[in-house]
Parts: sequence; C-alpha cells; structure tokens
Amino acid sequence: MIRHIAMFTWTAEATDEQKAAVAAALHELPGLIPQIRSFTAAPDAGISQGNYDFAVVADFDNADDFLVYRDDPRHQAVIAERIRPILASRAAAQLSL
Amino acid sequence: MIRHIAMFTWTAEATDEQKAAVAAALHELPGLIPQIRSFTAAPDAGISQGNYDFAVVADFDNADDFLVYRDDPRHQAVIAERIRPILASRAAAQLSL
Repeated sequence: MIRHIAMFTWTAEATDEQKAAVAAALHELPGLIPQIRSFTAAPDAGISQGNYDFAVVADFDNADDFLVYRDDPRHQAVIAERIRPILASRAAAQLSL
Repeated sequence: MIRHIAMFTWTAEATDEQKAAVAAALHELPGLIPQIRSFTAAPDAGISQGNYDFAVVADFDNADDFLVYRDDPRHQAVIAERIRPILASRAAAQLSL
C-alpha cells in the first residue's frame, strides 16, 4: 500500500471561504478517482502549536494508482484553482506500507 | 478520531543508521502506549520530488489520548535522542475525523 500525505499552510490573506473550498473540492475526488482506497482531508484541529493548517492522507494499492491520482486533471485543477492561490508552504511524503 | 501526522526532513549529515534508529524506536511506541489505535511510520518511498524524508500517521480515539502519546516520556525520549539530533525540519497537524 502507498500512503500519500500532504500538508499545507495558508497565506495570511486566505479567507475562510477559500479554505473551505479546498476541503470541499478535495472531498469530491474519491468519487471521481476510483484508485483512491481511503481519503481524509481536513484542517488542523488546533490541539498543538506550530502546526500546518491543513492535511491530506490518501491510501492507494500501489505506486501506479497513486500516480493516477497525482496526475489526474481533476486533482490538478483543485491544486491550481483552490490550493495554489492561498498556499504558503507544502510538505509531502509517500510511505510504502 | 484524532489523526496525528508528523513529517521530518533530516540533516545532510544524518547517517543511514541514525535514520533507521528513528523508525525502530518509533515502532516500539504502539506496544508501550495503549492509547495508540493505529500507527504508521516510514521513510518516504521516493516516488515524487521535493518530499519530506520520513512521516508518521497515528490515530487516537480523541484529543486526550493524543496528548497522552504526545507527552509520554518514552515518546519524548525518541524525539530527544533519535529525532532531534538529525532533524532539519518538521511539519505536523492533527485532524479531527
């Protein structure tokens, strides 16, 4: 299994509406990309200091299926239209489990 | 459920032995801290460019259980003795799912 993790911080200018639109757009992807086995995407819960603002954890059967997701034009549209306009920093990894 | 995510990059001087010791020490924690419901910790698989070097995803029933893990002295010892000596940068979030 491949577990994909991505975390974002948002710019100071990002609005609550823009942040909510990221989550809404990402949550459509499991219905569009059948290679996604499990998908969680949510804002940080505010429990600890110094955290990133938002995180995605998505599981795939294998690396090829992850690449289908990564490169899917509907996913790329979420990145270009919803994430990138308010993105301050990004951290990502894929784990082979 | 609280999903805790932490990602690390390592210093250029970090050895393979030091990196392996982080994973080994972390993998002992689920046997020591019963509040951990699910625990994955592994190096980045090398599929994508620009990734962090290592990631942890750990699930807990609630925020209190996450705090037990976060503040457990055996976890703090792993951070102090294994992670911090080779740590270049850290990204973390907790998601309420």
